[in-house]
Amino acid sequence: MQVEIITIGDEILIGQIIDTNSAWIAQQLNAIGIHVKQVSSVADYPADIIVALTLASGRADVVLVTGGLGPTKDDVTKQTLAAYFDCGLRRDAKVLAHVESIFARSARPMLEINRRQADVLDKCDVLFNEMGTAPGMWVSHKGKTYIIMPGVPFEMKHIMLERVIPRLKQFEDRKPLWHHTILTGGIGESYLAEKIADIEAALPHHIHLAYLPKPGIVRLRLSATGGDLNALKAETTTIVQQIKQRIGIHFLAGEDTSLEQLIRDFMQQRGLLLATAESCTGGNIAKLITALPGSSSMFEGSAVTYSNAMKMKLLDVKQETLDSHGAVSEQTVREMALGAQRNFKVDYAIAVSGIAGPDGGTPEKPVGLVWIAVAGKTQVAAHGYLFGHDRAINIDRSSMAALFMLWQILNAEHK
Amino acid sequence: MQVEIITIGDEILIGQIIDTNSAWIAQQLNAIGIHVKQVSSVADYPADIIVALTLASGRADVVLVTGGLGPTKDDVTKQTLAAYFDCGLRRDAKVLAHVESIFARSARPMLEINRRQADVLDKCDVLFNEMGTAPGMWVSHKGKTYIIMPGVPFEMKHIMLERVIPRLKQFEDRKPLWHHTILTGGIGESYLAEKIADIEAALPHHIHLAYLPKPGIVRLRLSATGGDLNALKAETTTIVQQIKQRIGIHFLAGEDTSLEQLIRDFMQQRGLLLATAESCTGGNIAKLITALPGSSSMFEGSAVTYSNAMKMKLLDVKQETLDSHGAVSEQTVREMALGAQRNFKVDYAIAVSGIAGPDGGTPEKPVGLVWIAVAGKTQVAAHGYLFGHDRAINIDRSSMAALFMLWQILNAEHK
Repeated sequence: MQVEIITIGDEILIGQIIDTNSAWIAQQLNAIGIHVKQVSSVADYPADIIVALTLASGRADVVLVTGGLGPTKDDVTKQTLAAYFDCGLRRDAKVLAHVESIFARSARPMLEINRRQADVLDKCDVLFNEMGTAPGMWVSHKGKTYIIMPGVPFEMKHIMLERVIPRLKQFEDRKPLWHHTILTGGIGESYLAEKIADIEAALPHHIHLAYLPKPGIVRLRLSATGGDLNALKAETTTIVQQIKQRIGIHFLAGEDTSLEQLIRDFMQQRGLLLATAESCTGGNIAKLITALPGSSSMFEGSAVTYSNAMKMKLLDVKQETLDSHGAVSEQTVREMALGAQRNFKVDYAIAVSGIAGPDGGTPEKPVGLVWIAVAGKTQVAAHGYLFGHDRAINIDRSSMAALFMLWQILNAEHK
Repeated sequence: MQVEIITIGDEILIGQIIDTNSAWIAQQLNAIGIHVKQVSSVADYPADIIVALTLASGRADVVLVTGGLGPTKDDVTKQTLAAYFDCGLRRDAKVLAHVESIFARSARPMLEINRRQADVLDKCDVLFNEMGTAPGMWVSHKGKTYIIMPGVPFEMKHIMLERVIPRLKQFEDRKPLWHHTILTGGIGESYLAEKIADIEAALPHHIHLAYLPKPGIVRLRLSATGGDLNALKAETTTIVQQIKQRIGIHFLAGEDTSLEQLIRDFMQQRGLLLATAESCTGGNIAKLITALPGSSSMFEGSAVTYSNAMKMKLLDVKQETLDSHGAVSEQTVREMALGAQRNFKVDYAIAVSGIAGPDGGTPEKPVGLVWIAVAGKTQVAAHGYLFGHDRAINIDRSSMAALFMLWQILNAEHK
């Protein structure tokens, strides 16, 4: 079964809002084995809407439409839909009572524009919307199914979960579809692809591998279709194991999680404490960890020491180390990590110092040079990296490289 | 001139990523008077890509394509494009040298898969990509213009800003369109709308006002179309002045900037130094400031003190203060701010302590309670806030509220 999504509204086309609805809808449909073939965003113009409906219904069995049903836009979209489906509009008594009850509660005056929210296509099944005034509509037309919903995300989600998904589940010809995501770290997309080239080449035709890179992290997604769902799960699990064996420490998890979540769980379970000493990452590592609920059980804090004076005061970095090696050096990050470990009284400490750019580089220490140290129970590991010229990406890559170094040491010290 | 955007990649269609590129591209195009007619997201299948290109070029003069150009996807998309444009691929020497220099720098081995990144459509103008290995391509074909870019957001943005926008600006038939953005802070969207309701109601038909809220910050965008560009600029400038007078301190800037940039510039120009003492924001304020180039000239660092022990050690918070008032209290944040100001030897210090959630609340101190203090030259201001239940939003709102308090005091102390 093929599905397409059409979003109606100028907001997306002028870049005022980002279309988060389509991704959410696609996830929900994927979870029940329905594949989205295309997403189209069109403006609130009748001709554009009709062309989009015509093309989408030519390619797909089911067309989901969101947007264009708010009180100020009501007329264009609904009239256009009525023309497309060659039907009229009727005022639905149950929806009208619901709209009236909403206005009665809010004590706002109810206008004719609001009453028109209760007008629905006369050949539709109403998809009742408890969360707002614009109902959804389910239309069967010339052998195709159209599902029309408001664009407000929480209203759309409510209608999808309560009305649409249960009904789509009854369609017989859903194709089993299974996704298995792998999180990898400390290895670039190309190098990873080379390492598993033979595994990828040997994939059967019904299993597809996708690379989803972010700075410092690559997700791999296996998508399997056809046949029996349990067979697909077994097949992808075998492939995940092959990849795991092949890439070793770079295999972080056989699920869609994050490196900071893995570290939080690992340290929380073992009662280990972490602190960070951050210069060029400027608190970003602390921010990533503290974004996670429950991180206070394993995270003591961070010394964000942008100045040399603070590196000495908070982390006991020696004046002579800074004088002879500079702030961006192996010696300095080692002292920062040990200082953080001692002063914060933690088991593990991360230290980062680098030149994030765009300025501040020298021939010996160019923009993108970053030193990272991790103090563990039995060792202090330190490593120098040469990233690129973009400040934001250097901060992201430094943060992920530091977390990956910590992850390696955590695993080595807790076998 | 009509433009369409096509995004290529399964990731969007299975809901794994949200398409943020299209909104960003649409914003950039709008700013130079170019209207986006439709956005289509299609899978990495040759037939789908070719149909999308055919349909889009039938409706629009310019087709922007993003995605499908990473090293592991290279073959499908580029071969499909070559078929569509009825041309071959050639290995571009300049791009190859660039790819090689990236690999030389990183000391990773360069593979054939990486070399293939330098293969471009032989009838294209290369849109050089300093930020990555996949170049963009500009193709003129049967009277239409095609602009093909990688989907990685920072690479696409770089190519758009450096190569595509300047060239599109030379197209003659753009419609005069003028956007003027205002940054406001410390005031919610509804309250702001109420304050300027009469100004909004009096706007002429060709000027549209949009609210673009983020946690703690609302941008207002005036969009004016038609007639003469200089007349549009004069009209919007008058309206901006009306809004500025009306909302006073909540008017941060008559341009699209950020509060942290305003603070960096203000402090840099006056030689003032800042430090932060962060508990529930976990380093997020430091991260926001250090994300800005040049912030090292005004930012000394941050003590991210998640534990009480660290609040005492790094910020000299008194044991008795924590015992009698708790970590989330006016007294504690005042001591944190003064401790940071003293220990970091700075002119201004921000302190934040709160319960970000989702757990950790009590009847007296519920989730969402956040205390913020700012130590200035002549005063320590402190204020308690009650935000919501979402951890990420609480961290964002706390950060922006703290920066807004700092902004107010900076302005009050430097009249």
